[in-house]
Amino acid sequence: MKGSLLYEGKAKRVYHTDDPEQLILSYKDDATAFNGKKKESFPGKGRLNNLITSKVFQSLHQQHIKTHFIQALNETEQLVYKTDIVPLEVVVRNKAAGSITRRLGISEQTLFQPPILELFYKNDELNDPLINDVHAYHLTGIREQDLTLIKEQALLINEHLSSIFQKAGLELIDFKLEFGFLSDGRLVLSDEISPDTCRLWDLETGTKMDKDVFREGIGSLTDTYERILQRLEESVCAK
Amino acid sequence: MKGSLLYEGKAKRVYHTDDPEQLILSYKDDATAFNGKKKESFPGKGRLNNLITSKVFQSLHQQHIKTHFIQALNETEQLVYKTDIVPLEVVVRNKAAGSITRRLGISEQTLFQPPILELFYKNDELNDPLINDVHAYHLTGIREQDLTLIKEQALLINEHLSSIFQKAGLELIDFKLEFGFLSDGRLVLSDEISPDTCRLWDLETGTKMDKDVFREGIGSLTDTYERILQRLEESVCAK
Repeated sequence: MKGSLLYEGKAKRVYHTDDPEQLILSYKDDATAFNGKKKESFPGKGRLNNLITSKVFQSLHQQHIKTHFIQALNETEQLVYKTDIVPLEVVVRNKAAGSITRRLGISEQTLFQPPILELFYKNDELNDPLINDVHAYHLTGIREQDLTLIKEQALLINEHLSSIFQKAGLELIDFKLEFGFLSDGRLVLSDEISPDTCRLWDLETGTKMDKDVFREGIGSLTDTYERILQRLEESVCAK
Repeated sequence: MKGSLLYEGKAKRVYHTDDPEQLILSYKDDATAFNGKKKESFPGKGRLNNLITSKVFQSLHQQHIKTHFIQALNETEQLVYKTDIVPLEVVVRNKAAGSITRRLGISEQTLFQPPILELFYKNDELNDPLINDVHAYHLTGIREQDLTLIKEQALLINEHLSSIFQKAGLELIDFKLEFGFLSDGRLVLSDEISPDTCRLWDLETGTKMDKDVFREGIGSLTDTYERILQRLEESVCAK
């Protein structure tokens, strides 16, 4: 049973439930970019990201990746385990796109082999700055062994996600993960995995099929996300 | 014998010598800050940084740290081994000051125990961006074992420098190092160590005695650097 609002973020609302260990994530229709400077609402986006994230997390469960996800409750809401979120955005990049091209002067599409993993400190006031491991220890108090585990998991998840999206005809360019600790201390993947948090390019045409459609104003966000969901559903059924 | 000009940087000119393995560094009187946006010339500054760097590098040699430094030639010039410079600025921070306070919202004077080591990609056009290890591999081609050695050396040098400056009544807040490869492949400390590249606070009063005097316009740069040189000379003699 949905309880009181615990927290409202840019893309989701978080509600208490009867079980103190479980929460309900309610996906909003809002899209934001450039650290909230561009903002718009797209009816149907919340449903799409809820269903896409649910499908991806279920696929990751089949690969024995531990996540906070329990089950989708309805079109826009999902039940998850409560986690103590590590205030880090863990970004894995297979090819150069977005901020890294400007920050480091690297051409878009440059292949990163091995993938580049980046840590950003989750802090809106500071614009989520890039940090290194020692900064992370200092700013978040995370232990070295847990940060090592996060990185190992992120790279493993990259392999699984790349495969999941490839089967749907999509190239996984980069993505952002968040991790959290369950009440028993176990570290699990948290937050969402959707075209809001992944760059996905059509395998054949290279067309951008993610939030860059909104960032760059180059198409219909909900049409694009709908196609992602359809392709995921078809590729899962085809297995 | 001083040959032709090889390279002119913001603070130094580099000349060929008769020996292809050796170069002459000629220290300029120019001071720049904020990536070259603030610039001024201070007669005598080149002499001071040449003499301070020479003294510090000699002290590091006594601690068996390998550097490019051979000897001071005159008041503004020194003879060094030619190195293939790694395009990284290696910053070690014992206390928070300068850019890290703004970038990560950390109060000035916050103690970092252990010290924080940061890598910046030497690239004026990109404003010398902060990078992580994987970026360094990708951008500079440096091997993992060499980057590990650079970090170990930087932290060891921090211990020696802290001790050298403490004997001169100065607290070493942070500093920037550069490393290079000799022609035989050995990695050595390169560039300079001076109040241009170190933050030094008076141990008793906390007064800033480094380039922040110029950055913040809070005193005479050459008077300050002259005091650093005097203190280093006195503390070395007192040993």
